[in-house]
Amino acid sequence: MATIFSKIVAGEIPSYKCAENDRFYAFLDINPLVKGHTLVIPKREVDYIFDLSDEEIGAIQVFAKHVAAAIKKAFPCIKVGLAVLGLEVPHAHIHLIPMQNEKDMLFSNPKLTFTDEEFKAIAKAISDNCTADIR
Amino acid sequence: MATIFSKIVAGEIPSYKCAENDRFYAFLDINPLVKGHTLVIPKREVDYIFDLSDEEIGAIQVFAKHVAAAIKKAFPCIKVGLAVLGLEVPHAHIHLIPMQNEKDMLFSNPKLTFTDEEFKAIAKAISDNCTADIR
Repeated sequence: MATIFSKIVAGEIPSYKCAENDRFYAFLDINPLVKGHTLVIPKREVDYIFDLSDEEIGAIQVFAKHVAAAIKKAFPCIKVGLAVLGLEVPHAHIHLIPMQNEKDMLFSNPKLTFTDEEFKAIAKAISDNCTADIR
Repeated sequence: MATIFSKIVAGEIPSYKCAENDRFYAFLDINPLVKGHTLVIPKREVDYIFDLSDEEIGAIQVFAKHVAAAIKKAFPCIKVGLAVLGLEVPHAHIHLIPMQNEKDMLFSNPKLTFTDEEFKAIAKAISDNCTADIR
């Protein structure tokens, strides 16, 4: 059965897309810790990130680096933090979180709520700052 | 001025080494969230992980993948989680954390304390499970 993230990639479930190439997809976390909290996933359905091939591990992290640069331009921060937990959705995903403070990375923090229009504006701000090849 | 992590790589400050190759170094976090909590760093001194070149980003994550596999063998867990925060020590470092639960990744959790002998045994267990090329 397809994971919820595979359904997002297929367009069967809507998402706030930030960036995409032939192999990877970036979209907003709908339960964000901070404004600009983004998920990066492989289109290929793999549960555990370290089950990706060496080549894929490198490629997804380079894709994430380029998305992180766009997030940092759209939502100025000290650094964009990175986390992979992955015990909930069985489809590898990298959290990219613009940090003003290390506490911004605490997954126990209350999640923010945005309207549909706000989510769209956040995703557009990130997408607009992506290089053309992943926009 | 060299970072504390550069001094660790140079052997000027002791560490509990888990793995190493010509470019990357893995050692135990001395304030671990769980047993087996390991840090992976580039020997080249770079503050922000996304300032590494695309090639280096790929290579360090592949190195981390192989260290994570050794951690998982030494300390059975559901998955090894990955986090990069990096607002404290200005030398990029990847946290590898064997997870039984997503809560194991909460950096607000109290840190564990081990004796020198216990740290040595943990590092040896990880090192012994590494492939020969990074042991």
